[in-house]
Amino acid sequence: MIKKIHHVALVVPEMEEGKKFWTEILGLMVGREEHVADQEVDVAFMPVGESDIELLNPLSDVSGVAKFLQKRGPGIHHVCLEVDDIEAMLAHLKKAGVPLIDEEPRIGAGGHRVAFIHPKGTGGVLVELLE
Amino acid sequence: MIKKIHHVALVVPEMEEGKKFWTEILGLMVGREEHVADQEVDVAFMPVGESDIELLNPLSDVSGVAKFLQKRGPGIHHVCLEVDDIEAMLAHLKKAGVPLIDEEPRIGAGGHRVAFIHPKGTGGVLVELLE
Repeated sequence: MIKKIHHVALVVPEMEEGKKFWTEILGLMVGREEHVADQEVDVAFMPVGESDIELLNPLSDVSGVAKFLQKRGPGIHHVCLEVDDIEAMLAHLKKAGVPLIDEEPRIGAGGHRVAFIHPKGTGGVLVELLE
Repeated sequence: MIKKIHHVALVVPEMEEGKKFWTEILGLMVGREEHVADQEVDVAFMPVGESDIELLNPLSDVSGVAKFLQKRGPGIHHVCLEVDDIEAMLAHLKKAGVPLIDEEPRIGAGGHRVAFIHPKGTGGVLVELLE
């Protein structure tokens, strides 16, 4: 079962500059900030209601986030849906033939178990699942 | 003040096909469906927590949504933030020099007053404000 939109993730080419519109102009507050080593990105979460806006700043040229930035430019990267049981959801998606980037949950930002669905299976949308 | 993420909008090339992943596979329910005449799009909202996933299907080649689909392909189109006072927010954005697509609120899907901020002012993200 899907509980809510956990976050909407935006790619920014530079973190402090990228925060400015959301904080100085819209008035959002930066909550948790983190370096996600295995993705080579810095992340910053800004709460909005029950969700967050997540800023993603690639720190090398090799991550998927960096490749997205090079190809598509800054902007919306993915939407993350919080589920009650990520393993059940992944099993369900596999059975339905939906292509997955992560066949098994891995540990993402904040220590949550996460998995990405391939955009080929979703109509072009990069979807993260999070428990 | 920003209250919540009202919806995340996805462009789909065909509405019934576009719904399938979200409904048949993820189990979301389609709520309100609407034809937005001045934008030449059909829209369908699927509630997720306090937000919605909105599907946008362009019905002609002339709308901004159609141009987005032609240029970038299907995927995430915009994020909509619900505000408590859209006129105060637009005045604040103008004063800050943020480029606006809609200088004044107009009536969008569901009869809400909405206005779009230009991606040039947001780091590449098309942001809709809604009261």
